[in-house]
Amino acid sequence: MKRRTFIKQAAAGTAAAALYTSGFPSVLFKKKKDRLGVALVGLGYYSTDLLAPALQLTQHCYLAGIVTGTPEKAERWQKKYRLPEKNIYNYDNFDRIADNPDIDVVYVVLPPVLHKEYTIRAAGAGKHVWCEKPMAMTAAECEAMIKACSDNKKKLAIGYRMQHEPNTQEIIGYGRNKTFGKVKLVTVAAGYFDARTDHWKQKRSMGGGAMFDMGVYSLNASRYVTGEEPLAVLAQEQTTRPEIYSQADETTLFQLEFPSGALANCATSLGMNMNYLYVTAENGWYKLEPFQSYSGVQGTASNGTLLDHQIPNEQAKQMDDDALAIINDTALIVPGEEGLRDIKVVEAIHRSDTEGKRVLIG
Amino acid sequence: MKRRTFIKQAAAGTAAAALYTSGFPSVLFKKKKDRLGVALVGLGYYSTDLLAPALQLTQHCYLAGIVTGTPEKAERWQKKYRLPEKNIYNYDNFDRIADNPDIDVVYVVLPPVLHKEYTIRAAGAGKHVWCEKPMAMTAAECEAMIKACSDNKKKLAIGYRMQHEPNTQEIIGYGRNKTFGKVKLVTVAAGYFDARTDHWKQKRSMGGGAMFDMGVYSLNASRYVTGEEPLAVLAQEQTTRPEIYSQADETTLFQLEFPSGALANCATSLGMNMNYLYVTAENGWYKLEPFQSYSGVQGTASNGTLLDHQIPNEQAKQMDDDALAIINDTALIVPGEEGLRDIKVVEAIHRSDTEGKRVLIG
Repeated sequence: MKRRTFIKQAAAGTAAAALYTSGFPSVLFKKKKDRLGVALVGLGYYSTDLLAPALQLTQHCYLAGIVTGTPEKAERWQKKYRLPEKNIYNYDNFDRIADNPDIDVVYVVLPPVLHKEYTIRAAGAGKHVWCEKPMAMTAAECEAMIKACSDNKKKLAIGYRMQHEPNTQEIIGYGRNKTFGKVKLVTVAAGYFDARTDHWKQKRSMGGGAMFDMGVYSLNASRYVTGEEPLAVLAQEQTTRPEIYSQADETTLFQLEFPSGALANCATSLGMNMNYLYVTAENGWYKLEPFQSYSGVQGTASNGTLLDHQIPNEQAKQMDDDALAIINDTALIVPGEEGLRDIKVVEAIHRSDTEGKRVLIG
Repeated sequence: MKRRTFIKQAAAGTAAAALYTSGFPSVLFKKKKDRLGVALVGLGYYSTDLLAPALQLTQHCYLAGIVTGTPEKAERWQKKYRLPEKNIYNYDNFDRIADNPDIDVVYVVLPPVLHKEYTIRAAGAGKHVWCEKPMAMTAAECEAMIKACSDNKKKLAIGYRMQHEPNTQEIIGYGRNKTFGKVKLVTVAAGYFDARTDHWKQKRSMGGGAMFDMGVYSLNASRYVTGEEPLAVLAQEQTTRPEIYSQADETTLFQLEFPSGALANCATSLGMNMNYLYVTAENGWYKLEPFQSYSGVQGTASNGTLLDHQIPNEQAKQMDDDALAIINDTALIVPGEEGLRDIKVVEAIHRSDTEGKRVLIG
């Protein structure tokens, strides 16, 4: 199923479901919020340095609460962001968030191994869920998360930023509108040199490794550029620091085949700095470099177009888009189903590496 | 063996061989030519549109003769380039070129399936040989060609242009000198859309297909950038026009692993226009785009360097370098051994595609 079709169907489905389940009373009596309260679950680097600052810039949502297992962090954050005591949770009392009307959305920013549990608990508490990438450890976990949110009539968005970024949206449009003809080859590389030697990102059992961490960017870029779902993958994992990357991939190279005949040549690594997306189409090319930097994306195209749309903050744009979709009950740009699709391919990539051969994606 | 080591050893070997075999008499009595006479074998597009015009710009060699099976072509070329009648050969009387002192070098510009035969015949006729890429159909053929030239004390150069091109030479130097630290990943794509529907380039039995035609550029770029020989390859061939590419690959994607841990993510195609070389190194990046265009190469590096050396004509530079190496009896930049190395990898790529798995390169 093509992405475009998928988004249309998802939109139709969500609208229909909302109409069917909410009925008149809630429409009449529940006041539509202008801004949603977001609780961040997990106060590591990404919450601290990226999401919390971004939530000071958002128009349609704001930092309303936190969930952390570290009392000192709770105190620091409470002071810094003037959070009411009642909106501070730890992992034990987290489920009581159900009774807190300040919190509309729970944003799960934990290591991937915990995504399923906290997504399901948040949905069970009646909260919408934003979940960081990679969505979860397995496709089965993703499906359980989607089901939990659906059963609780809550939205589930995956924390991919790029689909919200205007230069990325422009090139997604090129593929959709065949501006340069059919996409033939996507070459994409996403990586950084991670100097840490003892971190969960070096443990696959925690959801670490290059493919889970950065590879999903290469992968979902291949998918959003082509607008197609890959049929098969040929992949290999490589490590130059086996003492550090004994339990997860430092680098993964993978080739994807799409139904139209388009191909993708992808790389991802925690051992090198690289960030580019290069698209070869029938009648031209376009590229973004960097294609997923926090500080902005830029690019060029063979027809002379300069891709240099600028936004103040990528995470703020992502969260505002997702908040608006909840407020207006419209389709999310990156619903759980998108994360699931990537994890299905990640599973096939791991299988291809293990078996040392081309693998069909189920 | 690293390329740098190889060139050094080749240089030493050639010098020693020359000293041993030529002895004093030839040094004393054979006048050193200033310019070598070149005979082009095969007057297709590449000879007609690229090599013959380039041979009007060369300083150390010139177009002295032709070998063609088509009398009308012989007549046209003879007139256009004022070639003496005695320097015009066909495929039957070709071996008589042995008696023609005007011809120092035979440049084999035939379909690859004929490279071995004409290289061996030219060497047997006592001529130096320049042979177009891909060097030959198999590694065994390459070895036979190298032996024939060696047995006849003649030099054998492969018609790769890029190693002679100054921007390419600059980035080869980056790898050698570790200007940006160790090379980690080479991403390279070389292809063009070939609209022809009935040509030998669509027949593997003739030496056609993307890998043979353009893939050797991606491959030898990976080798000259890293300065290493690949240990293993994972490859797949793909075709979007099976009616045309039933006997050869339209597109090949291949991943290479090098001894240092460097990787290459390569693409080549006769179904799409693409031409870029992107190097991720420890402390920066550099790229050429295009990296093997006839009309020039250009690029940038992460330290702000603009790679924009310009030369009047790539083929003229290549042929002048090769002519000088013959005149001065110095090492060729791209001797037959370089072509052989690529063909060994091409064989492994075909095997990887056929077997659907990673293959060690023998």
